[in-house]
Amino acid sequence: MLDDALGRHVLAELFGCKAEMLNNADAIRDAMVAAARSAGAEVVGEFFHRFSPHGVSGVVVISESHLTIHTWPEHGYAAADVFTCGSRVDPWVACKHLVSALGATTMTATEARRGVFSPNQARSDVAT
Amino acid sequence: MLDDALGRHVLAELFGCKAEMLNNADAIRDAMVAAARSAGAEVVGEFFHRFSPHGVSGVVVISESHLTIHTWPEHGYAAADVFTCGSRVDPWVACKHLVSALGATTMTATEARRGVFSPNQARSDVAT
Repeated sequence: MLDDALGRHVLAELFGCKAEMLNNADAIRDAMVAAARSAGAEVVGEFFHRFSPHGVSGVVVISESHLTIHTWPEHGYAAADVFTCGSRVDPWVACKHLVSALGATTMTATEARRGVFSPNQARSDVAT
Repeated sequence: MLDDALGRHVLAELFGCKAEMLNNADAIRDAMVAAARSAGAEVVGEFFHRFSPHGVSGVVVISESHLTIHTWPEHGYAAADVFTCGSRVDPWVACKHLVSALGATTMTATEARRGVFSPNQARSDVAT
C-alpha cells in the first residue's frame, strides 16, 4: 500500500545464506536481475563488484528505483534493499525471490515509506 | 556508533531541492561521488540514468557499501541512501554533503543498523 508515499523501500536482512553463492558475483547478479524481473520491474542498468578476499556488492537500477545487495559470505549474511515507486511493482516479491535464490534460512525485513510530504512540503511547491 | 552491527544505513529525505539540479544526471553523479569522497569512502563503481520526462536514478558503489539516489524534480525531492560498513566512514558526512550540493531546504533522515546477529544467528555458523 503506497498511501501518499512516492515509494516503498524494503530493507531485508538475509541470514543463513549459502556462502559459495554469496561469494559469486555472477550468481549474485543473476539472482538480483531475476528478482527485479520477478516483481515485474524494468531493469535499466546494473553494477556488481567482488571484493578480496570475499564479499560482493551490487546494484540493479530499475525504472521503479533500485535493488542493492552486500554480502558477507563468512557470516552467511546479505543485506538486500528493494526500493520501488509506483503501485505496479511489489518489492516483497523481489525479496522473496532473493530468499530462495540465496538459500537464506531466515529473513527479517522492514518497509520504509519514501517521499512522504507534510503539508508544509507541498509537492507542488517547486516549479520545473 | 556501530555497536555489533555490520553496517549503518541512513535513509535521507531531501526536500526543497533545486529542480534543475535534480534533473541533471551529470550534476547528480558529481554530487554523489563527491559526497562519498567527502566521507572518506573509496568509490569502486557507479551507474546513473536520466528518465524521460524527468528524474535521475543512480548509485555509487563504495568499498564500504553504497550510496543511491532517486530524484523527483517536479517535487523538489530526492530520496538518498548512504550505507556504510566499518567504523572509518561516517554516512552522515555524505548526507550533509548532499544537502548542500542539492540545495535542499529540509532533510529528514533515519539510520538503520544492518547486519545485527541474534544469539541463534551466530556469525560463525557458516564456513567459507
